[in-house]
Amino acid sequence: MRLATLRTPTGTVAVRIDNGTAVELGVPDIGALLARDDWKAFAAAGAGPAHPLNSIERSAWAPVVPAPSKIVCVGLNYRSHILEMGRELPEYPTLFAKYPEAVIGPYDPIVLPAYAAQALDWEGELAIVIGAAARRLDRDAAALAIAGYSVMNDLTMRDYQYRTPEWFQGKSFEKSAPFGPVLVTADDYGVDTELRTEVDGEVVQSAITDDLVFDPAALVSYISQIFTLNPGDVIASGTPGGVGHARKPPRYLVDGNSLSTSVEGIGTLVNQVIVEGD
Amino acid sequence: MRLATLRTPTGTVAVRIDNGTAVELGVPDIGALLARDDWKAFAAAGAGPAHPLNSIERSAWAPVVPAPSKIVCVGLNYRSHILEMGRELPEYPTLFAKYPEAVIGPYDPIVLPAYAAQALDWEGELAIVIGAAARRLDRDAAALAIAGYSVMNDLTMRDYQYRTPEWFQGKSFEKSAPFGPVLVTADDYGVDTELRTEVDGEVVQSAITDDLVFDPAALVSYISQIFTLNPGDVIASGTPGGVGHARKPPRYLVDGNSLSTSVEGIGTLVNQVIVEGD
Repeated sequence: MRLATLRTPTGTVAVRIDNGTAVELGVPDIGALLARDDWKAFAAAGAGPAHPLNSIERSAWAPVVPAPSKIVCVGLNYRSHILEMGRELPEYPTLFAKYPEAVIGPYDPIVLPAYAAQALDWEGELAIVIGAAARRLDRDAAALAIAGYSVMNDLTMRDYQYRTPEWFQGKSFEKSAPFGPVLVTADDYGVDTELRTEVDGEVVQSAITDDLVFDPAALVSYISQIFTLNPGDVIASGTPGGVGHARKPPRYLVDGNSLSTSVEGIGTLVNQVIVEGD
Repeated sequence: MRLATLRTPTGTVAVRIDNGTAVELGVPDIGALLARDDWKAFAAAGAGPAHPLNSIERSAWAPVVPAPSKIVCVGLNYRSHILEMGRELPEYPTLFAKYPEAVIGPYDPIVLPAYAAQALDWEGELAIVIGAAARRLDRDAAALAIAGYSVMNDLTMRDYQYRTPEWFQGKSFEKSAPFGPVLVTADDYGVDTELRTEVDGEVVQSAITDDLVFDPAALVSYISQIFTLNPGDVIASGTPGGVGHARKPPRYLVDGNSLSTSVEGIGTLVNQVIVEGD
């Protein structure tokens, strides 16, 4: 099942994508859907107004979960990226946080003030979306708490990231993280698919998502030992090799670039970078 | 003005503390109060049922903002603590996040599973509470966005903190951060007061809050360049010297310890450490 959140003049609506149409589910967004214990049956049964996909403007696509209460990001989780950054394979996942203010829709422009765009880098990621409260779960139970998968670009201000010992401030800029376009439920997604990032049509990251050191169930289990993950919470599972900062010389995004982030079997984020004056 | 959130059998209530009584304000908690544009006048005018403070059980005191949408923590912000950790004075504030699941009331026990209490350390902190949306503010405007001040202990699992390059996972354990007992509005608090942490009555941290490298207005201004701070959001402004991890040998909290964290002019958190089996 493929689920999305669409903007309408009167607010957002959750939809199921079926055969080229978006069928309204009667709840405002996928976050509200996942808060229901019966979300899966409810989504499957939804039969509200249907809209042909080709009639929906790109600007109408909202972040699939518009305001996740938590976005937990994972660093150093692709073998290829760890090696590129000159590190050893880790014993534990590296975690940091992003706040909901960071999220934008799958086709929204990334609009940043100039001071935030001096060393702007891409990090295409597979996003894990939680479907049931997860607290101190083992791996098998953790797998069952995953609602499904989506795509996020964890855009990073490398200058802010490395200003201090903690990466958080380079990972949390308002309206910097495109998320969507759809949630594919766990039963309809196989994890060994291609993650690909392109800048102006040039492929800059390409990896298979089974290159993860800590896979989705392992991440949910580990994080759930620390705090409760709630329905609609998101884990950005880490980025593979190919980031701009690791190039010699480094390469960063600039005003006008078109950034495309896709996971095979889920979909593609397409976001133009717009740098405003300070 | 001194404000608090109290638990009742039917939910929480926001109160103003006046002359030994808690006067109900007609909103459920201080987070809901601060969401009102007129929060200050509303709080001053509140005249609901009044309860003598000495009739209120300690267990009835809730976190002063029970569910802040964001808790931004500041590391390395007291000159004395920076020197103790062997670092240089920083050019930028070090920031990391804590999620709302971490917060407990000012007198609640700190109940942790054994795996979370192998290297449990105290970090007494002055907490800054936001009273108006803050986005890209200069220092003067940032000062006006501060509702007031409270006390938080940013208890830290040092083993988890140093498992990976990012501190976040040692700073975010569920129900590990006592917060309260009151919010003192900015006009009633002077920043050069004593912050003191005690373990079983022994003073382990004592500092004057004007030893901060980045003061409250500077922190709000800096963070507001990155994302919007909303009413009820909290900045834990950093801990002074005297943490257990910096001692030789290190000293950690254990089952049965009583932890007391106070800021002169605000109040004292008193929390017993209870370590459960895994």
